[in-house]
Amino acid sequence: MNISSLIMFDEFERYIRQYEPGLTREQMQLIRSKSVLKKVRRRQVLLHEGEVCQHKIFVLRGLLRTYGTANDGSEYVMKFTPEYEWITDPDSYFNRTPSELNIDAIEASDVVLWSHDDFEALRTVIPEINTLSEKLITQNMGVTQKRILLNISANAEEKYQYFIATYPDILRRVPLHMVASYLGVSRETLTRIRQGQAVAAKS
Amino acid sequence: MNISSLIMFDEFERYIRQYEPGLTREQMQLIRSKSVLKKVRRRQVLLHEGEVCQHKIFVLRGLLRTYGTANDGSEYVMKFTPEYEWITDPDSYFNRTPSELNIDAIEASDVVLWSHDDFEALRTVIPEINTLSEKLITQNMGVTQKRILLNISANAEEKYQYFIATYPDILRRVPLHMVASYLGVSRETLTRIRQGQAVAAKS
Repeated sequence: MNISSLIMFDEFERYIRQYEPGLTREQMQLIRSKSVLKKVRRRQVLLHEGEVCQHKIFVLRGLLRTYGTANDGSEYVMKFTPEYEWITDPDSYFNRTPSELNIDAIEASDVVLWSHDDFEALRTVIPEINTLSEKLITQNMGVTQKRILLNISANAEEKYQYFIATYPDILRRVPLHMVASYLGVSRETLTRIRQGQAVAAKS
Repeated sequence: MNISSLIMFDEFERYIRQYEPGLTREQMQLIRSKSVLKKVRRRQVLLHEGEVCQHKIFVLRGLLRTYGTANDGSEYVMKFTPEYEWITDPDSYFNRTPSELNIDAIEASDVVLWSHDDFEALRTVIPEINTLSEKLITQNMGVTQKRILLNISANAEEKYQYFIATYPDILRRVPLHMVASYLGVSRETLTRIRQGQAVAAKS
């Protein structure tokens, strides 16, 4: 293992310990042995729709995107995953069914992969992993619920306002057409909203 | 315990066994002892926004609704939960934070309640419960992802088509304004879509 991998593993270990400070050195060693580091190029695809999602993916550095394809062939962004967040297709991962989603890298990224089988093995010997896993899933569900509520109750401008207030960092790192796709508004509408706000900010 | 409660517990046990056929009689007895049956009147509220969500709720009979309130005071339907499905506010339930959602009964219902503390006790002695719990959460995530994808990619007519294809039974049991609220379209738009489809079906 080279030094950069060691540093990354150490960083991942510190992250895990935030949630589960009580893990022993042996448990942590086991988790390390099941965690695969991967360097991902920009635009590299980690999950193709139609495949079974094999991993829980943790982003150490970089930015991933999860997206689906509509009937007319256009892409729709489901989620952006920056540093220190997890991404998987939970339905496909857990039920071993073909995914309807794709996951690719918007920036060159360092990720940690937990394969389905390794994770199942880990959770039987380290029950604390279940708590961590459920905590992450439910945090994710909270974000998702908020998004649905916005989708059905807010107009395009309110959705954009919420996005820039919640994800100011992602806004700077992602092309505008992907933000439009995430919000479910056309690029023209988003441009109009941003111009309106720039004018309002100046006056 | 009266006979109707016994019958309901037996039904709940059969449901659990579908997922976890390997549970022993003692484990099942423990699950029963932590499961609280509740008869819910129509319009009765099981969770008020601002409260911490205390339960995982399983619907044996009836129909529940989860809804939020927008800034302008109007209600937005997050989810309908019919027989043999679970509902909770996962974020509030797991992280013990005040919920932004309400859960009430659209029909008189029989539900099974698992309290947070009882469930935590159950999962430490019956690890199979974790698998069941995660399976249910991820199924729910699959539905939720599909909904977000529709919300950002489909027009009102397509969303309605998907709803009646996926939940024909719920459509019959729920007032139309709640369906409109679930879809995030106005009641007028929904009426127009339904009239258009009725005309198309006749011609």
